[in-house]
Amino acid sequence: MVIAEVVGTVVASQKTPQMQGLSLRIVRRVSPALTPADAYQVAVDVVGAREGDYVLLTSGSAARQTHLTDGAPVDAVVMAIIDAWQVDDQVRYDRGDRV
Amino acid sequence: MVIAEVVGTVVASQKTPQMQGLSLRIVRRVSPALTPADAYQVAVDVVGAREGDYVLLTSGSAARQTHLTDGAPVDAVVMAIIDAWQVDDQVRYDRGDRV
Amino acid sequence: MVIAEVVGTVVASQKTPQMQGLSLRIVRRVSPALTPADAYQVAVDVVGAREGDYVLLTSGSAARQTHLTDGAPVDAVVMAIIDAWQVDDQVRYDRGDRV
Amino acid sequence: MVIAEVVGTVVASQKTPQMQGLSLRIVRRVSPALTPADAYQVAVDVVGAREGDYVLLTSGSAARQTHLTDGAPVDAVVMAIIDAWQVDDQVRYDRGDRV
Amino acid sequence: MVIAEVVGTVVASQKTPQMQGLSLRIVRRVSPALTPADAYQVAVDVVGAREGDYVLLTSGSAARQTHLTDGAPVDAVVMAIIDAWQVDDQVRYDRGDRV
Repeated sequence: MVIAEVVGTVVASQKTPQMQGLSLRIVRRVSPALTPADAYQVAVDVVGAREGDYVLLTSGSAARQTHLTDGAPVDAVVMAIIDAWQVDDQVRYDRGDRV
Repeated sequence: MVIAEVVGTVVASQKTPQMQGLSLRIVRRVSPALTPADAYQVAVDVVGAREGDYVLLTSGSAARQTHLTDGAPVDAVVMAIIDAWQVDDQVRYDRGDRV
Repeated sequence: MVIAEVVGTVVASQKTPQMQGLSLRIVRRVSPALTPADAYQVAVDVVGAREGDYVLLTSGSAARQTHLTDGAPVDAVVMAIIDAWQVDDQVRYDRGDRV
Repeated sequence: MVIAEVVGTVVASQKTPQMQGLSLRIVRRVSPALTPADAYQVAVDVVGAREGDYVLLTSGSAARQTHLTDGAPVDAVVMAIIDAWQVDDQVRYDRGDRV
Repeated sequence: MVIAEVVGTVVASQKTPQMQGLSLRIVRRVSPALTPADAYQVAVDVVGAREGDYVLLTSGSAARQTHLTDGAPVDAVVMAIIDAWQVDDQVRYDRGDRV
């Protein structure tokens, strides 16, 4: 998995039937030091993330291992909203600090 | 998934039987800011996209999760035509503006 | 999938039993503008491609979705010989021109 | 698999049910010469690794081939703690030397 | 698949049960022109390769398609020892020349 920030939304009305009702978000990878990368993906959000949230992004066949994405042509899913992370015993991000 | 533009077509008559009847399109990745990347793939189109359309491209085993590609040696599929997307609360692309 | 040129052959006698009888080819990626990339792979050929042919290369679990590669430890397969492709309404490659 | 160092921890309370109880670690790739790369991932730890441990990181569908991650939307798992490795007949890392 | 050279060994005693008894080798990618790349992986060897051997490396779910790796959290396997390869009708490597 990688850490990513939710930065946008995609709307698509012409799509395969299995995609009906799925929320499509644009996510951007960030480093553990919170540096945004020039790497964007579109992922299905199954946890109700909002723009600005830092999330865990799962790719590949694992993206279909949720109730909502099972059997859909989906290769990336937002499956957790991150509360905090630390590296080398230092807190690098704490969602509570932003509220 | 990634955002890509449909830019071309591939014709192949000698192929494995499961590929019969599938539409092969050349797609090019674009950034959310609409900058085209030097990254091309060939994908099966299952939604009737036309050249110039911006589409969602799914890769890996998920590309076989459609009625048309099930059981075929296909690792990339165009499974939605994008109507619009926004990043940081700004609309970056709206298909209606092009008509 | 990606467009690649068949450029060589690999011979291996000590291998897992499932690899017996499979044709191993060295392929090199090319751009839609026919620029060869410094990116080589070894793939199983299931369509009888010859050196110099431009082919479609499928990677990942999809490479096992052919009669010959089913159940084998194979992550790349040549599953079509390309006749022609076009980008931006221009023919970039036509196999007939080479005969 | 790749060699990685465990460098941090992620906490996420809002997540898909299958992620409950799994330990999320931030890992950083290192070369066999112990040079750290600027490549971080989040992985589920199933072997009780501690920060500073060098571990084996498995990616893709193989990450679900453990008792703890089976059926979860997980694409990376720490599945072994490395005792030692050698390259060109030279020991490059020996965990015992660090104790 | 890619061509790689076996360059080292990894020892790990704390690991998931399915990894018991598997031989872990460090492999380094080489180009068809025998130029080593700065790209290392750890793979399970199922064919008894020795250091210095050039081998075929299979990645992804295909790495579990051998008797030894079936059901294990393994994403890379050495499944053949290469005897020879040629590119553009020239032999670039012949194992017999080294004996």
